Amino acid sequence: MSASVGDAGDKRKPLKVALLGCGVVGSAVARLMTEQAGELAARVGVPLELAGIAVRRPNRHTDVPAELLTTDAEALVTREDIDLVVEVIGGIEPVRSLLLAALKSGKSVVSANKALLAEDGATLHAAAAANGVDLYYEAAVAGAIPLLRPLRESLAGDRITRVMGIVNGTTNFILSRMTSTGAGFAEALAEATALGYAEADPTADIDGFDAAAKAAILAGLAFHTRVTAADVYREGISAVTAADVASASAMGCTVKLLAICERTSSDGEAAVAVRVHPAMIPTSHPLAGVGDAFNAVFVEAEAAGSLMFYGRGAGGEPTASAVLGDLVAVARNRVSGSRGAGESAYADLVIQPMGEVTTRYHVSLDVADRPGVLASVASAFADNGVSIQTVRQEGRGDAATLVLVTHVAPDAALASTVQRLSEYEFIRRAGSVMRVEGMPSE
Amino acid sequence: MSASVGDAGDKRKPLKVALLGCGVVGSAVARLMTEQAGELAARVGVPLELAGIAVRRPNRHTDVPAELLTTDAEALVTREDIDLVVEVIGGIEPVRSLLLAALKSGKSVVSANKALLAEDGATLHAAAAANGVDLYYEAAVAGAIPLLRPLRESLAGDRITRVMGIVNGTTNFILSRMTSTGAGFAEALAEATALGYAEADPTADIDGFDAAAKAAILAGLAFHTRVTAADVYREGISAVTAADVASASAMGCTVKLLAICERTSSDGEAAVAVRVHPAMIPTSHPLAGVGDAFNAVFVEAEAAGSLMFYGRGAGGEPTASAVLGDLVAVARNRVSGSRGAGESAYADLVIQPMGEVTTRYHVSLDVADRPGVLASVASAFADNGVSIQTVRQEGRGDAATLVLVTHVAPDAALASTVQRLSEYEFIRRAGSVMRVEGMPSE
Repeated sequence: MSASVGDAGDKRKPLKVALLGCGVVGSAVARLMTEQAGELAARVGVPLELAGIAVRRPNRHTDVPAELLTTDAEALVTREDIDLVVEVIGGIEPVRSLLLAALKSGKSVVSANKALLAEDGATLHAAAAANGVDLYYEAAVAGAIPLLRPLRESLAGDRITRVMGIVNGTTNFILSRMTSTGAGFAEALAEATALGYAEADPTADIDGFDAAAKAAILAGLAFHTRVTAADVYREGISAVTAADVASASAMGCTVKLLAICERTSSDGEAAVAVRVHPAMIPTSHPLAGVGDAFNAVFVEAEAAGSLMFYGRGAGGEPTASAVLGDLVAVARNRVSGSRGAGESAYADLVIQPMGEVTTRYHVSLDVADRPGVLASVASAFADNGVSIQTVRQEGRGDAATLVLVTHVAPDAALASTVQRLSEYEFIRRAGSVMRVEGMPSE
Repeated sequence: MSASVGDAGDKRKPLKVALLGCGVVGSAVARLMTEQAGELAARVGVPLELAGIAVRRPNRHTDVPAELLTTDAEALVTREDIDLVVEVIGGIEPVRSLLLAALKSGKSVVSANKALLAEDGATLHAAAAANGVDLYYEAAVAGAIPLLRPLRESLAGDRITRVMGIVNGTTNFILSRMTSTGAGFAEALAEATALGYAEADPTADIDGFDAAAKAAILAGLAFHTRVTAADVYREGISAVTAADVASASAMGCTVKLLAICERTSSDGEAAVAVRVHPAMIPTSHPLAGVGDAFNAVFVEAEAAGSLMFYGRGAGGEPTASAVLGDLVAVARNRVSGSRGAGESAYADLVIQPMGEVTTRYHVSLDVADRPGVLASVASAFADNGVSIQTVRQEGRGDAATLVLVTHVAPDAALASTVQRLSEYEFIRRAGSVMRVEGMPSE
């Protein structure tokens, strides 16, 4: 069968592919392109030929044909015979310049680069449009999970109201460990590092930069509005304590780092709110069961209702699967002389300031257990317009802790409340504040 | 904002849409096309104009403009000014003739018709290809869940090995009720009918015809092979008893009607196995938690690993969301003068006979509780090459029941075993046999 498939494809001139980067993802892309050559040719209509691989240190790459390797990425992306460019290097420069050069030379581009797309997608989209070529980047968000294409195409006839997901595997692994073992953050991070789930410098993951870039890309597609990483409110997980995780558990919740993109309104105008932060969600919520390095994204749309997409968010092969799906799509477009849907930013909604974003909060306060304390605390909330849903006191005397869960309130109102509470001398420790998401509507 | 969006779209000639059928889905499509006209125009590049609606009884449709209604569907689909045809009538004829006429007149078609696609998709695909137009049908499987596009496009660079899902909401509602209340099949069906989850004639749902049509469509896309409803092994849920559900529960499982499409091999050749039947799955499996009228589909691919798609599988608005997503896609293609990916059946794999398909089985036998019974039962399994994983005896004396769970074995071997068991006089009742899926690999 594979022979006849190959023959069918070989009747037409192959499309030549340049690969930028050959790390974990790049080498999986190169290997799968070879292993599945017959199938890919049958799906595209012509064979795909890997014609060059740009790397920094050619002698480190013994698993790909040496004659394909080059250190001159700039020459490769503008080479006359190259039709399609696949980028799996990551980072902003020199990748932005390379991809712009490729697009300007008429090559279609497939990229897995969330940081670049979130920082300056507009420039790349404009270059793709100006040169009549494609820019696809399914692999940039949630690895193997088909997510950008469903948002961009399947839901193109609907109004998306909310996207909420777990889009970073490293932090999800750490929080899952903290939940299952009771470990603190530092201990769980050390375990993640030892097992290869966290990089030597885990800042981009644990401080939420990675998730924020993905949130910007998701919000842009969902709401037809340009959103950059700088528009995303961001809090990482390094301040999450074992006590927070235990407190979440006590109220039937689990702690997750969520990326949340919402269609809201600001000053009477339609707006977009995009944020990344740890949050408590009910253990009955489908996202609560997403463990370890998996990713999952909930999408709510007016007509479709709730949808969920679940799968592996990282790793060489899963990411390569998404890259190759895009490669087949841009190659098909090249064969048929057409172009996929470009950037859709017509709605041009404003970004809602974080202070206006509304959600619920879990607040825990270590207090002196004496008459009048609850009344004072309650008035701090009331004076700032924050309504309390439940209050629970744990312990007595010097070990007393008040745990409050609020109704939905603006972020700024909660911040003022916390400020006010910090002035009370009977509060021994400011305690922790964490947002609560995914509860049934009030 | 909506004014400027409308203006932008109105600069170009609108695309005219004919709607065939105006029931629950059709009227949602018509309403959403009006409500979201500005957004749809911005996404397509030109406005979409609903130019005619074919119905059988025009006086029943007071929610759409009367001047759009016609009883002459044939004239409508070939009308000179129509660009795109949306079909939400269902059934084989006259719809097949209407859609063929539309495709031959150069209209692109969006259909939600699983029965027709599963019976004769090849004829429609051929007509679309011959006339250079599109045939899209995302709404035919799993309602609002973006599933066909991810299979066809996002995973086009991967090798799908298995698709397993809950694709029929009616049967899932009935089985969910049987599980939560202990009710029998007839009682749960009556409840589903009373609540509107089951049609007056529920045959297509409860006997698995609906799920089988969807399985054929999924298998065709996943394995690049033509699969029709007749190729699908099918068992419905009417024989599932309260005792089966209780027995599943006792072994930590729940009963679901599953559609399973697998890449296998038959006689050393690559093959496809497609089946629909009730099965026990562990309650820890993500599909076990999919309740009521929801749908969910698991996809396993070599590079991507496990993916899950979850959402509303039926209903007017969710189905309309999928129809409109397709409508935007075919309209964009029309505007850009291109065509989406057509049928991909190059792999042309054989269909594996059900007797060769391997899985595990849960067998319960009402036996006379006396020495030698277990030895005889065990030898019936052993003689047919079926290996037993666990045996449990419930009750004693006349009320004794043997519950066996097998290792993976071919369906024919299990059938021979059951035949042999039926000959033993000490078995008081043949008991029930149910397949077990989604257990961790042996």
